[in-house]
Amino acid sequence: MPADLRVRFLHPSGAIGPGKIALLEAIDRTGSISAAARSLDMTFRRAWFLVETMNTAFREPVIRTSVGGREGGGAGLTPLGQEVVARYRQTQEEARKAAEPHLRWLEGVLKDNTGGETDAGTEPPAG
Amino acid sequence: MPADLRVRFLHPSGAIGPGKIALLEAIDRTGSISAAARSLDMTFRRAWFLVETMNTAFREPVIRTSVGGREGGGAGLTPLGQEVVARYRQTQEEARKAAEPHLRWLEGVLKDNTGGETDAGTEPPAG
Repeated sequence: MPADLRVRFLHPSGAIGPGKIALLEAIDRTGSISAAARSLDMTFRRAWFLVETMNTAFREPVIRTSVGGREGGGAGLTPLGQEVVARYRQTQEEARKAAEPHLRWLEGVLKDNTGGETDAGTEPPAG
Repeated sequence: MPADLRVRFLHPSGAIGPGKIALLEAIDRTGSISAAARSLDMTFRRAWFLVETMNTAFREPVIRTSVGGREGGGAGLTPLGQEVVARYRQTQEEARKAAEPHLRWLEGVLKDNTGGETDAGTEPPAG
């Protein structure tokens, strides 16, 4: 079974990983935070929190929201937001390329499927 | 402020990221699961769960536990476990090298410190 790789940027002002990038891309695609949240099966509350978190972490906003209120108006990425997504995607591709032999090796030493695996393998230990 | 990068291997049998790698390294360093847990400020229960999760995900164990019971005996990495750690570290270094210009760029567009950010704090220790 295929192994893959994800990258996460760490910084004291906030981490940027696959979840936030997926939200940015969904906002770019759908033109609204609520539609982006729905498309990711995420609550609007959670999406809004992540948008505020990201806009606060950067010196300038990465998501613009238009007049019309939180649910009424549209949303989109600023040029800075577009560049964050592009640079994340580029890093992800370069990292995947570098990891290729290790991913193939992992596929040989990991079981095909544990059958009962839930989220145990997807969450790192806290702390 | 410095930006950094973490990688995570994804696979249907389980993901391997910085948290599990830190635990493997701590077991290797301390020679016991309970000492490893303490050194990572992790509950023994959590560490044991992760050990079982990893040993189940791989075709062969990555952590060996010696006779003497869960708390009484020692623990260490098998050769397979050593190789998992080495390959993760190599991937991490290669990915960081590829990401270098993007990390420098991020440092310029992210605030020095938001003061109230908590999201970045959910990352596991780097080990």
